Amino acid sequence: MSNRTEISTLGEFGLIEHLTKNFELHNASTVVGVGDDAAVIDHFGKQTVVTTDLLLEGVHFDLIYTPLKHLGYKSIIVNLSDVYAMNAIPTQVTMSIGITNRFSLEALNEFYDGVFAACEKYQVDLVGGDTSSSQKGFIISVTAIGEVSPEKFVKRSTANKGDLICVSGDLGAAFLGLTLLEREKSIYLENPQIQPDLEGEDYIVGRILKPEARREIIDFFAQQEILPTAMMDISDGLSSEVLHICRQSNLGCRLHEDKLPIAEETRQAAFKFGLDPTVCALNGGEDYELVFTVKQDDYDKIIANDNISIVGYMTELEEGKKFISKGGNTFDISAQGWNALK
Amino acid sequence: MSNRTEISTLGEFGLIEHLTKNFELHNASTVVGVGDDAAVIDHFGKQTVVTTDLLLEGVHFDLIYTPLKHLGYKSIIVNLSDVYAMNAIPTQVTMSIGITNRFSLEALNEFYDGVFAACEKYQVDLVGGDTSSSQKGFIISVTAIGEVSPEKFVKRSTANKGDLICVSGDLGAAFLGLTLLEREKSIYLENPQIQPDLEGEDYIVGRILKPEARREIIDFFAQQEILPTAMMDISDGLSSEVLHICRQSNLGCRLHEDKLPIAEETRQAAFKFGLDPTVCALNGGEDYELVFTVKQDDYDKIIANDNISIVGYMTELEEGKKFISKGGNTFDISAQGWNALK
Repeated sequence: MSNRTEISTLGEFGLIEHLTKNFELHNASTVVGVGDDAAVIDHFGKQTVVTTDLLLEGVHFDLIYTPLKHLGYKSIIVNLSDVYAMNAIPTQVTMSIGITNRFSLEALNEFYDGVFAACEKYQVDLVGGDTSSSQKGFIISVTAIGEVSPEKFVKRSTANKGDLICVSGDLGAAFLGLTLLEREKSIYLENPQIQPDLEGEDYIVGRILKPEARREIIDFFAQQEILPTAMMDISDGLSSEVLHICRQSNLGCRLHEDKLPIAEETRQAAFKFGLDPTVCALNGGEDYELVFTVKQDDYDKIIANDNISIVGYMTELEEGKKFISKGGNTFDISAQGWNALK
Repeated sequence: MSNRTEISTLGEFGLIEHLTKNFELHNASTVVGVGDDAAVIDHFGKQTVVTTDLLLEGVHFDLIYTPLKHLGYKSIIVNLSDVYAMNAIPTQVTMSIGITNRFSLEALNEFYDGVFAACEKYQVDLVGGDTSSSQKGFIISVTAIGEVSPEKFVKRSTANKGDLICVSGDLGAAFLGLTLLEREKSIYLENPQIQPDLEGEDYIVGRILKPEARREIIDFFAQQEILPTAMMDISDGLSSEVLHICRQSNLGCRLHEDKLPIAEETRQAAFKFGLDPTVCALNGGEDYELVFTVKQDDYDKIIANDNISIVGYMTELEEGKKFISKGGNTFDISAQGWNALK
């Protein structure tokens, strides 16, 4: 028997690192390769950003409670979010799908209605794709392409000590929306007579089913001439993303519980489920907000924007990755974000 | 009950046309959108080509007889082939995979060895991707990006009446390789003691398991200053591809049986299986050769290249799409190529 190493021992990021570690780049035009939100390609001065995502039924989405139109919309949004996270503007997308024969043309039309609605709203062009039959499950693969002015793209690895850590919007809502939908699903499966009760939960359900990408934050940076020192989108959870920035920038950090932006609807839903809203904000994924670091000099510009919260700052590596609770206790930050390989 | 239209009634190309017919382009940089081998994006004078393919276990490949290293290699090649088919040079690829837990890290390493071998040979950079767990089957999604000088990209829709129809290399071998592997698989499944007999069939088996993309033809065009009037790669079969060029260029064609390039190994394998080599060459897919049209003025340059065969010419639409047999009989060309939605 040859050796067998379980992939789960590496995790998604360890796996990508392992697989690509010996790979050399051939093209001078490749500015940023594997390991960030998106790759950066230089085309004679103008830089092209490329990112891709694979969404699988039963792993990334559940068609029991995900309307196809929302799914089409979201599958575009999650890729645009990666382009914005490079401080770039998305311009084109490709969409490949694998479908089983349980899909009718009407169902596909619904899915594409969502795709086109997202393309329309974010002014990107669908320029290609591939359609196949799938033996099991709906498979969605999207690639997004964007543009960024030379020297303006923002990586994960370039934060500096003392930089402010900022997040857009609010956190934790998508996770609670998902928790609610999963609860309603299990009630429904036990008793199909009971209709789902989503009354008053529009906000958290909307955040999981129909997320938006944070274009207005990128526009704000351009208007205010702010160039973040590092940036990512929050797909796996704030803790997980901040740890990426720390690791890739070779720094530590401090996050403050009392600074975390959490919507009132999210707090109430958390209490209803007996969950700690702070844990939801730190570890809940799929918010598609942006987390970024800026120089302290940009403080005045940042606090003028109501959609941005300063949640902490970067420290020396030796000071660790720390979370300061409202009570003043200090904890190590651990990534308990969502792992697509679990 | 709402209406239900079976997707199979449209076919893959009908489906893509249906889904994208009302979609408007927003970006001036989108030069060619859906409907060709690849999209073309203008980035300040230099043009970027983008293409994507989804490969699914059980639909596009069978792991019983496909070594993972070959599969990794091929999954890159089929995308590079689409970039070359635009008369462009591929520069970057992204690779997303969905894997079940039956995959060990060693298995994935083998797959990526093939990916990197193809990237190395064709001098392209792997710049991103996504890794997920899959509930069933191995899922591969590749996007390739390339460059082309302004005004040099070649579409499917721009052939002219009287243009010569040319193909690179030889046809039908991949289909016979697949036929052989499928036969050996069914023998093996019936009696696992019997070892597969692929003796003397290296050529046809190599053509299905480890295809190459036709970079040398694109280099030849550049050296000889030939700009094809239309071009595609042959993934579904020559008949199917020529019909695409006819339809998109609004023309008819004549193909001549005695001009079809068929390797001696392919002929012999066809006779062994009781198949007509001409039918294999016309309708067998996955050869990843190029089919292109050139002006008659380029005749002398084209015949000087031993790797290119002139197989026919474009006619007025009214003259139909015709195939002339060795015996001088005329038939209508029909696409019986491989349909990923069957």
